[in-house]
Amino acid sequence: MNIANYLHQGTQSYGIVTDQGIIDLGRKLAHSYPDLKSLLQDDALDQIRSYASSPVDFAIEDIDFLPVIANPGKILCVGMNYAQKRLEFDETSPAPTLFVRFPDSQTGHQQPILKPAYSTQFDYEGELAVIIGRGGYRISQAQALNHVAGYSCYMDGSARDWQHTWFTAGKNWRQSGGFGPWMTTADEIPDPQTLTIQTYLNGQQVQSDSTANMVHPVAELIAYISTFSELSAGDVIITGSPGGVGKMRHPPLFLNPGDRIEVSISEIGTLSNPIVDDVDQQPNLLMRTA
Amino acid sequence: MNIANYLHQGTQSYGIVTDQGIIDLGRKLAHSYPDLKSLLQDDALDQIRSYASSPVDFAIEDIDFLPVIANPGKILCVGMNYAQKRLEFDETSPAPTLFVRFPDSQTGHQQPILKPAYSTQFDYEGELAVIIGRGGYRISQAQALNHVAGYSCYMDGSARDWQHTWFTAGKNWRQSGGFGPWMTTADEIPDPQTLTIQTYLNGQQVQSDSTANMVHPVAELIAYISTFSELSAGDVIITGSPGGVGKMRHPPLFLNPGDRIEVSISEIGTLSNPIVDDVDQQPNLLMRTA
Repeated sequence: MNIANYLHQGTQSYGIVTDQGIIDLGRKLAHSYPDLKSLLQDDALDQIRSYASSPVDFAIEDIDFLPVIANPGKILCVGMNYAQKRLEFDETSPAPTLFVRFPDSQTGHQQPILKPAYSTQFDYEGELAVIIGRGGYRISQAQALNHVAGYSCYMDGSARDWQHTWFTAGKNWRQSGGFGPWMTTADEIPDPQTLTIQTYLNGQQVQSDSTANMVHPVAELIAYISTFSELSAGDVIITGSPGGVGKMRHPPLFLNPGDRIEVSISEIGTLSNPIVDDVDQQPNLLMRTA
Repeated sequence: MNIANYLHQGTQSYGIVTDQGIIDLGRKLAHSYPDLKSLLQDDALDQIRSYASSPVDFAIEDIDFLPVIANPGKILCVGMNYAQKRLEFDETSPAPTLFVRFPDSQTGHQQPILKPAYSTQFDYEGELAVIIGRGGYRISQAQALNHVAGYSCYMDGSARDWQHTWFTAGKNWRQSGGFGPWMTTADEIPDPQTLTIQTYLNGQQVQSDSTANMVHPVAELIAYISTFSELSAGDVIITGSPGGVGKMRHPPLFLNPGDRIEVSISEIGTLSNPIVDDVDQQPNLLMRTA
């Protein structure tokens, strides 16, 4: 089951995405939830399965995608988590590399990703995103996948010239990351370490790997993070990028206005975003509504 | 004017702290706000000045302090921002070092700070905290201090053995930082670069410096951060620690259960917290209420 978070005719809602269109859930449930996060917080994911064969309410073209979780309490990002990427960046620490993105640094499927106004090294990173369903503290590796509600794609846009070894300023430009198109529920992905992940820039493949090559698999990341910080429904872990990023190419390959960046993960789908200029004073109406 | 955020008889509120006691504001204003953050979000700080000479409602001993802002949208932390600290850690980058704390990593004045269960290097860092009043994006240095609602003390508790160059895991243990005792409004501190900052461990001074020695002053930090990430009312910037931290002493000096750690800043006051063991499964009732 694929669940998207979106605006329809200016109203925030969420629903099941099918080949025929959208089964809107925001106004169907007894306890109506405004978005997917509030559904997860109420541990109500199972409630919506009975709607999976309902007639569609509108076409995919009628919605504006929002980030799968528009306002996660915590977005934890893993760096240097594929062998090839670690070689490229000369990273040898055995501990997971962790940094944080703020919610306003992300946008939804098909929405513009803003090239940071003051960066000349805006880079792509295609990643698997993990969405926490049932929260927990000090979760064991054995139990970890039971805490996952589902998976999505993430484009962890990175201003390399602002990144440093602490990442924060490179990873938090307004609307510089993509999160979507939807959450594929965990029952459809029993093993998240068997997925193919590929990134395309203007249709050309620039990254390709298998999640089998993660240095720290999803279950280990959940156990590590929840050792020091409690995880809650709607929290997001983005699990790192394969090698092949633009910074380490000869010559380097960065994102520019007019480009289109796409992240495809098997069993999930394709997140696609145009790159546009971040013009000062241009209000981002979609994100402000969400 | 000093404004604290607290629980009184189990109810969250906030008020003005005076030598005679607390002037409770949570139930006084026409639009009642549940906490200081919501007051700042409504740009209503000036409304409360007329209450500063009201009779007190209860004694300081009758409240349980909460973090000055219990749930900031963004907590941005500056590392390596005093000359002596940079020498100790061999830091030479000209850019501000930035990392993020999550709100559940902090606690209020006089509340227990939890020594991380799986760290043997839990260290103190006394810091000046800046609380944003009026939000903004791409704020100039010249305008920056007009966006500050007030200042407080912060004990940026640090598990050095989990810190790495990306900080996240070392700085986000549950209830491992202190934020208080209150916010001193910005009108009382026209120049935040003239304050004395001192840290005491069990009554012994372990850090002492002047905010004049910050490498990146408060106005520059606000301008730098708001270049890439919008700041909003209630956001918090903690501005880095002077030298003298425990990790770099010979022998090292770390925090243990039974210790008391205090951060004193001139014009503001003293944040004081006992260190206690982080026992698994012990619910943190205060933070869950807030």
